[in-house]
Amino acid sequence: MKDITIPGGKDAEKARKLMRAFSPLSGTELKDEYPVTRSEEVQYAVEQAIAIFPVFSTMSGAQRADFLEAIGDEILALGDDLIQRAMAETGLPESRLIGERGRTIGQLGQFAAQIRDGSWVEAILDPADPDRKPFPKPDLRQMLLPMGPVAIFGAGNFPLAFSTAGGDTASALASGCPVILKAHEGHLGTNALVSRAIRLAAKRTGMPEHVFQYVVGDGYITGLELVRHPGIKAGGFTGSFSGGKALLEAAGKRPDPIPFFAEMGSTNPVVVLPKAMASRGEVIGQQLVWSFTLNAGQFCTNPGLIIVREGDGFDKMIKAMHDAVLDRQAELMYGKGIRTNYDTRTREMLHQKGVTLIGKGPDGGPLDGQATLARVNAVDFLIQPELQHEVFGPFSLIVVCPDDAALQQVLRSLGGQLTATLMAEEEDMSGREAFLADLVNRCGRLVWNGVPTGVEVSPAMHHGGPWPASSDSRFTSVGTQAIRRWVRPVSYQNLPEALLPPALQSHNPLRIWRRISGEWTRAGM
Amino acid sequence: MKDITIPGGKDAEKARKLMRAFSPLSGTELKDEYPVTRSEEVQYAVEQAIAIFPVFSTMSGAQRADFLEAIGDEILALGDDLIQRAMAETGLPESRLIGERGRTIGQLGQFAAQIRDGSWVEAILDPADPDRKPFPKPDLRQMLLPMGPVAIFGAGNFPLAFSTAGGDTASALASGCPVILKAHEGHLGTNALVSRAIRLAAKRTGMPEHVFQYVVGDGYITGLELVRHPGIKAGGFTGSFSGGKALLEAAGKRPDPIPFFAEMGSTNPVVVLPKAMASRGEVIGQQLVWSFTLNAGQFCTNPGLIIVREGDGFDKMIKAMHDAVLDRQAELMYGKGIRTNYDTRTREMLHQKGVTLIGKGPDGGPLDGQATLARVNAVDFLIQPELQHEVFGPFSLIVVCPDDAALQQVLRSLGGQLTATLMAEEEDMSGREAFLADLVNRCGRLVWNGVPTGVEVSPAMHHGGPWPASSDSRFTSVGTQAIRRWVRPVSYQNLPEALLPPALQSHNPLRIWRRISGEWTRAGM
Repeated sequence: MKDITIPGGKDAEKARKLMRAFSPLSGTELKDEYPVTRSEEVQYAVEQAIAIFPVFSTMSGAQRADFLEAIGDEILALGDDLIQRAMAETGLPESRLIGERGRTIGQLGQFAAQIRDGSWVEAILDPADPDRKPFPKPDLRQMLLPMGPVAIFGAGNFPLAFSTAGGDTASALASGCPVILKAHEGHLGTNALVSRAIRLAAKRTGMPEHVFQYVVGDGYITGLELVRHPGIKAGGFTGSFSGGKALLEAAGKRPDPIPFFAEMGSTNPVVVLPKAMASRGEVIGQQLVWSFTLNAGQFCTNPGLIIVREGDGFDKMIKAMHDAVLDRQAELMYGKGIRTNYDTRTREMLHQKGVTLIGKGPDGGPLDGQATLARVNAVDFLIQPELQHEVFGPFSLIVVCPDDAALQQVLRSLGGQLTATLMAEEEDMSGREAFLADLVNRCGRLVWNGVPTGVEVSPAMHHGGPWPASSDSRFTSVGTQAIRRWVRPVSYQNLPEALLPPALQSHNPLRIWRRISGEWTRAGM
Repeated sequence: MKDITIPGGKDAEKARKLMRAFSPLSGTELKDEYPVTRSEEVQYAVEQAIAIFPVFSTMSGAQRADFLEAIGDEILALGDDLIQRAMAETGLPESRLIGERGRTIGQLGQFAAQIRDGSWVEAILDPADPDRKPFPKPDLRQMLLPMGPVAIFGAGNFPLAFSTAGGDTASALASGCPVILKAHEGHLGTNALVSRAIRLAAKRTGMPEHVFQYVVGDGYITGLELVRHPGIKAGGFTGSFSGGKALLEAAGKRPDPIPFFAEMGSTNPVVVLPKAMASRGEVIGQQLVWSFTLNAGQFCTNPGLIIVREGDGFDKMIKAMHDAVLDRQAELMYGKGIRTNYDTRTREMLHQKGVTLIGKGPDGGPLDGQATLARVNAVDFLIQPELQHEVFGPFSLIVVCPDDAALQQVLRSLGGQLTATLMAEEEDMSGREAFLADLVNRCGRLVWNGVPTGVEVSPAMHHGGPWPASSDSRFTSVGTQAIRRWVRPVSYQNLPEALLPPALQSHNPLRIWRRISGEWTRAGM
């Protein structure tokens, strides 16, 4: 089974550019070679996706659910080969990758359950009123429908859960949109394995052959070709601000702009309030160090900013954090560029006015990210907006606020965030209600006494915050609501029953939840 | 009561630029002068909106509902002054404006009912599972929250229902977003009256003073200043493609891009199938002529493209349409530019290859739009994509398809549409199921045996289609779902009950519909 259908003959094959993945584990390139997708192949892939859209988009939820579950089975059937390959390509520990595989399969299962139930189409029915004056009221019924072929960009830091068969792909396939994935160049072998699993699952469950395709490319060229193709109707990306912004702009500059959801990370501020700090500051400190250094801090929800209201227990908390950072073994980062960037950004931060180092963990190998904790006072933080830029890796900056006024100023200076966290006792909040509102206004998820890393996959999860955390704060890339990115409502006016999709037929053959005259029901109309 | 708070003193007032509205009725400028808003006033208005956002956004649904209903009352209290002023400024007939006022008040009432009930926040609750392995599952609760100050652009063709207190303003205020409106230069007096009504309503119901403000400007400058202001968090527009696109681009080019919904009109194809044509072609023809010429065709859902599958009754239908057009009295268009543009565009269309005139209505005054019906065959239509561009006014083009193959090609050539209409018998559809899918894939609303004009305001209405009909087909500007443009989901993780918004508290004090573990309920958790 070929990974991609290639037009052109053997001569074209000879001239083809090849790519190899780099292994942070060995510090060398892996031997397998992956052909770079040519422009005409990108075109061809999109045309194939367009061709199968009418079939795939009108399959029943149960059929597509079988497909998603089969993808999970096939991924599991790859066994240790997949885990070893992902380890070699990313340097992430085995236990983390086994966990990530579980998350990936779990996500597929949640989307399968969602579309098997079918209520996700948010059917709304407004009955006709032929006697209404001055004009009769028509019968109107609305449901969500898939938009068309979707371009997905695999993330570097999650080779499984945010990549080939990750949440973006799973949600798009669940909605009925064919997917063309741009493989992340950091884990081409992992991508090839998972792509094969998806295609086996497609075959096994009777899906059209081109329901899922992938392209390989160096830099942005292939990705931009994909986003600019008129047949692509939406896009999804998880990664850096610069990458997300470039693709978002390309999507917006098309003759027909398309929705493009980019999740671009954030600094995920954690606010530590006095009573909590006094009673359990050391534990909070240790918890935060664990969170920002875990897997070399390569999470978009990494707590990169810790905003502390000074008070009892402050010194003890800082001491505990200092000790924890010094204890923290360096871990491999997933790529050379990521590691170089981490060093540069850490150095820049430590050179800013008023920023002092609290501690650094032990140095590791040339690809390890060294845990680094720094501090700055509120005034110096406020006058240097560049301190708000994300440092991708095991770095965090403590912003020390002498009083509530300074704390409030710091909170109000913050840009959009995926998450904001309060480390507090309930009594800490009395008189500080405005702080809660300030945080909510800036984030997609508010965490109470926890760490922002560990993004639960569930219907109520929202993973997407105001700019620059994401390109559109109205959408999420994690959780079952992620499906909403790929669908649009369509209204049917006065259509005969026989021509309505089952989800909108009066007797509700699918037994889904529908909103009729403002009330939700699984009954018919 | 001042319409806008003006910084600067009397000297500044003297230098101020003034605007007057033009009256299509009299063909002259009206005497009242309206000061053009200066840059610093735009800034000031946004700052005021930011300042009151925390108060307004956290008011109860009932409080904001009172406000919306009071706006309706105050609009009605303006009495005939409002109708006469709108007539003078737009040339629209009195009966239409009385109807439009009813629609405007009705919309306000529907949004009031929606937020009084409160279920619109789409609360989702995922209970915690402390025993889950390997990690406990947190408690997650999600709801929709308003994004911040919103910029709204009044439409020229609907001085009431899509303008100052129209659907955009009503939905934004309902959601808890303060509104800054850019008044349409065509009806500045109508805007001043309605704005006053909104402010009286705000005062009467205890709203913050700056919950609604408006700006006046010549061309795009003031509008662009508004959209570019960092305090504006979203925008809404109804109008021309060029206007919508310019504002959308400005919103996308901000350092922090914001969602901007532009409804830019479309040609609203109507497909006439053989059995329907044979049995009632003349009635269909008359109905369509009425629809595309009503109020000089100044509707974004005007059926500007009538795609006919040739068959029995074709000649009779064309004859009926010819006669109806010749009978159709010319009506005033709402502005000089609109009328000039209509003439130019109609002339351009009639000069295209293969386009022939079927008939023109009687000529009217210099500002009247003359009903015009033309025809073209499918082949000539397909090779000239410019025939798909909207002609704003009482114009429609019949595309004659000799067979189903030609019809399908024509359907597949169409760009995004607000609406698509089928004039058909159920038997017409047998073997033509693909046509239905082709139409659905291209529109926001599918109409069966009706006219697309007359956009019902109801929960299941979707008024927004794929590009270029609207900037984002996932959102609507008509119906109660229009509120979704101004809100974003926020997740609360493990928050104590006392700190949760009422909509998310376990016992469900607001008794709203919430989704708990996948099922909708008004009960507590």
